[in-house]
Amino acid sequence: MRSISSFLFLLSASIAMVAAGERPKPIPLRWGVLAFPQYQGLDAYGPLEMLNVVKYYTPNMTIAVIAETLDPVPATTFNDLDQPVTYMKPTHTIDENVNLDVLLIPGGPRTSMNTNIINYVKNLYPKLQYIISVCSGATILAKAGVIDGKCATTTKFDWAETTQTGPGVNWVPCARWVTDGNVWTSSGVAAGIDLTHAFIKEIFGNETLADRAANILEIDIHKDSSWDPFCEIWNVTAVGTAV
Amino acid sequence: MRSISSFLFLLSASIAMVAAGERPKPIPLRWGVLAFPQYQGLDAYGPLEMLNVVKYYTPNMTIAVIAETLDPVPATTFNDLDQPVTYMKPTHTIDENVNLDVLLIPGGPRTSMNTNIINYVKNLYPKLQYIISVCSGATILAKAGVIDGKCATTTKFDWAETTQTGPGVNWVPCARWVTDGNVWTSSGVAAGIDLTHAFIKEIFGNETLADRAANILEIDIHKDSSWDPFCEIWNVTAVGTAV
Repeated sequence: MRSISSFLFLLSASIAMVAAGERPKPIPLRWGVLAFPQYQGLDAYGPLEMLNVVKYYTPNMTIAVIAETLDPVPATTFNDLDQPVTYMKPTHTIDENVNLDVLLIPGGPRTSMNTNIINYVKNLYPKLQYIISVCSGATILAKAGVIDGKCATTTKFDWAETTQTGPGVNWVPCARWVTDGNVWTSSGVAAGIDLTHAFIKEIFGNETLADRAANILEIDIHKDSSWDPFCEIWNVTAVGTAV
Repeated sequence: MRSISSFLFLLSASIAMVAAGERPKPIPLRWGVLAFPQYQGLDAYGPLEMLNVVKYYTPNMTIAVIAETLDPVPATTFNDLDQPVTYMKPTHTIDENVNLDVLLIPGGPRTSMNTNIINYVKNLYPKLQYIISVCSGATILAKAGVIDGKCATTTKFDWAETTQTGPGVNWVPCARWVTDGNVWTSSGVAAGIDLTHAFIKEIFGNETLADRAANILEIDIHKDSSWDPFCEIWNVTAVGTAV
């Protein structure tokens, strides 16, 4: 699709880099997305759509989908009464020692109760360059002890309930996303797309590519991590409290 | 999830409606989403995530997924070299005469070449209250003759190529979404979410519910259909031309 335009983009980006005397930074190429029953679809699909574009322009970048089994994993619907209509197809199970540089964890209504997934994250984290959570995916990081004493954020809609899973976490009530060392956590659902843009900009060192992905997908990216109207909308007045 | 809050929201919305002496408008309850190989994932997943919330607060609303067969339908990845990782699971085939009020059509790189899907839309359209396309899903409407002589928009990234599928269409180069009678067409990918919000606001007559869905998902909705920075970004200077 638009192969000439894509080639010219790659060429001009390379020329610009050389002209500026920049050395490409080593970037995390081996991505994994965690899939478990009733994950919140858009938590994963938004970042994945951005990453698919980034991957197109990034040689040797891979995206794995990790789950308990290789069976298709159903997303949640907001009400759990109906059959889910969207799925992720795993490429690896949590029992395989797949080598990853970055793991992205979506949220979902039952996220913090999946012991197998929590243990997988607990064991994998020390081997990762970066770990990312979207929405209530932060509850898995909390239960796995990854963010004890660290700053993190999560869904504002379910703030009180969600933050209870990590009493030792410095929950940041008003932030689109939060970084603390190699841990990136976003606010609810759509915030994962802004986090992904910021990650490509900062860690890949390539805002041009991050912007191109957003422009192809016609996404209006929020580039300020402190932008967060939803903490006020949902009356998140302090850590762990919602009125 | 948040059942008390949800109940209070429903109650307060009902009280407000009665207090204002408003009669609820008849709304299209039977939704269908069209699935075909290599649909652009986020074209469908964004609106679906919004509709899942709307459905939660809308008794008797149903969402069907219509495809050529009942086999899971793979989304595209931006480069088609890899295995897709996301799917929609059809609830009905195009050969069943499922009764729908609204059909939502996502885009994708091979969208305009699927004759079975195009014929299905051509035959179904006269029976629908509304039809919606996202991104290059408009090429199916064009090939099915649904938007001949009508105003419509589509992806700005692929503008020149995409608009060629409908020489008789009044393509609107700068618009987040366009409505013409009962046909709603959005610009690329993420624009489908803004269209969905506008549809719930206007056709369901319930901006409160549309806003609630967006706020739960922490989506910053664009409410002005003329908002479109991407026509400039992609140099869409006139209908059917891209520099």
